[in-house]
Amino acid sequence: MSAGGDTRRGARLGGDRSDRSGFYGIERWNAAELELVIAGAGAAGLSAALYASLLDINYLIFDAEAGGGLMNLAKQVENLPGMGGLRGPAITERLLKQLAAAGGSLRSYEAVVAIEPPPSGSGLLAVRTTRERFRPKAVIIATGLELLGLEQEFGIANERQFLGKGLSYCAECDGPLFRGKRVLVAGNPFDAFLLKRLAREVIYLGPVPSEYRAQVPREIIEANDILYREGAVTALEGTSRLEAILVDGEHLPIDGLFLTKRKAGGEVFARAGVDLDDQGFIRVDRHLATSAAGIYACGDITGEPWQIAKSVGEGAVAALSVFKYLTGQEMRNLGWALRDEWEP
Amino acid sequence: MSAGGDTRRGARLGGDRSDRSGFYGIERWNAAELELVIAGAGAAGLSAALYASLLDINYLIFDAEAGGGLMNLAKQVENLPGMGGLRGPAITERLLKQLAAAGGSLRSYEAVVAIEPPPSGSGLLAVRTTRERFRPKAVIIATGLELLGLEQEFGIANERQFLGKGLSYCAECDGPLFRGKRVLVAGNPFDAFLLKRLAREVIYLGPVPSEYRAQVPREIIEANDILYREGAVTALEGTSRLEAILVDGEHLPIDGLFLTKRKAGGEVFARAGVDLDDQGFIRVDRHLATSAAGIYACGDITGEPWQIAKSVGEGAVAALSVFKYLTGQEMRNLGWALRDEWEP
Repeated sequence: MSAGGDTRRGARLGGDRSDRSGFYGIERWNAAELELVIAGAGAAGLSAALYASLLDINYLIFDAEAGGGLMNLAKQVENLPGMGGLRGPAITERLLKQLAAAGGSLRSYEAVVAIEPPPSGSGLLAVRTTRERFRPKAVIIATGLELLGLEQEFGIANERQFLGKGLSYCAECDGPLFRGKRVLVAGNPFDAFLLKRLAREVIYLGPVPSEYRAQVPREIIEANDILYREGAVTALEGTSRLEAILVDGEHLPIDGLFLTKRKAGGEVFARAGVDLDDQGFIRVDRHLATSAAGIYACGDITGEPWQIAKSVGEGAVAALSVFKYLTGQEMRNLGWALRDEWEP
Repeated sequence: MSAGGDTRRGARLGGDRSDRSGFYGIERWNAAELELVIAGAGAAGLSAALYASLLDINYLIFDAEAGGGLMNLAKQVENLPGMGGLRGPAITERLLKQLAAAGGSLRSYEAVVAIEPPPSGSGLLAVRTTRERFRPKAVIIATGLELLGLEQEFGIANERQFLGKGLSYCAECDGPLFRGKRVLVAGNPFDAFLLKRLAREVIYLGPVPSEYRAQVPREIIEANDILYREGAVTALEGTSRLEAILVDGEHLPIDGLFLTKRKAGGEVFARAGVDLDDQGFIRVDRHLATSAAGIYACGDITGEPWQIAKSVGEGAVAALSVFKYLTGQEMRNLGWALRDEWEP
């Protein structure tokens, strides 16, 4: 009986509360001790990290910036149950403080750039960050959406200035803020139908992207009382909020602009054997397991809807799945025949 | 263009903010207006209701009690990202207040007792509560776990007294509270393996239930440094916390008791054509759609892990899926060929 418990797995890393001296000391990073790497510290990654800390998983969490991800761009979040009305950065701060209180620690400004299949026989994954290499038993991918990719695509000069002030990348998220308003949608035409339930007037800016054209041709859009016109947004206008846009030089007063085509960014992980869907999002099952053993994913990178609540919930589930996976691995070492639920 | 927006669907019910006079007036409940019924107001149901309010869905939410569900039994919740250290009832209060602020309203002490398939051709579901009948377009089932069923099964006299004070029904949830402690598990033997990663000493109380015996016979348990013994828990002892249990009359000092076999309670909804898994939980896809058109499910009733964060996230996703489903139905009325994602 005494073989169980804390002494069994040696020094703790991310989950350590009893001894944080030399926490980043390189000498303690031997491969056998590192159980989990979490890539990305937005809502999903920070939720997974909190759980990993509470579950005494030896983990590291990395973020290309200081944590929070797209959440930091939210001006006011009304749809996060239990925490209504907070600014995005305030939510990030809460999550980071709670993580620190649980003994966890974020390695910021260090991004996971590659996950490679395990060298044969080792059973450990190979993870490369912008600074180092690691050999964890499991990985949680929580790197979210590539906002940058989207900006490059639309490429409107002052896009950032109006984000959260009339400009939105998510019809489901921000639609309720435009009740009774006049909005224009460019990108996914299905979002124009969603917004029609909330807004007073919806304009769809064609042409319909090729991937949607078979399902939603121009005729369908117009038959549903959505104004259709073609062109490109060339400039955004307004003082404190978006008030109008220029479409091919023509001035068009609107309250809201929805640019709803975005980039998943899952491609960089495909090399690890992770299946993607046709939009580049990582396919996961109900346990947040990907198609690759030991690799889990949560948050925006698993597909829509893009919601903080979804990300937080998935982060929790992913960490618990890893906890089970690690337990299962320990059992396997003793020759135990695992049943399916332990290796999703 | 002017056909869109608020006037189209007549008076608002649950999502109404502009006119709440006569909110419960029976004359306003005509079937064409009621879009959604949410069954259950725990973390999942309240999250779904908040989203439904924000999305202007005409809905009603029912709860057999006053809302909060199993969450109310939690003494202190450490693993809810962004809201650490709160008592369960305090979380419930936050969710209820936030819902009220968004214009939503809970019909408490009225339970959904049956969902029936739509009478042919109507396209509306038939929902029966303990008081009335309704005909919504969609339903979200968020009725959680049947704690009662579990209590009846174990039937230890003072079970309630020690809940959250040494007694737990969820190894994943409460395991971290028992680091370095001595715990006993009765029920799911896999939980004994999970707890072995956290606790100092784990005892499994056999015999192993028949559904687990093929995968986890006694030999496997003992080979993994878990103490195996057989018997039944006949009494719980302790003053402010659980200190010991009686196993067939023998005094056994322990810090934690995990009774981890529980009842899903999904059976009552099977009549609506909702598929259940072999444990009685409702099968859902990534959109939280069940196998029955227009019926969604979220929270504990969709299966483990039993986490508030999971429930909240799933509630948000379920409501957004309903929003898409309703939009898709409106389109279909115009003869539009829906693509798969709109009818998950």
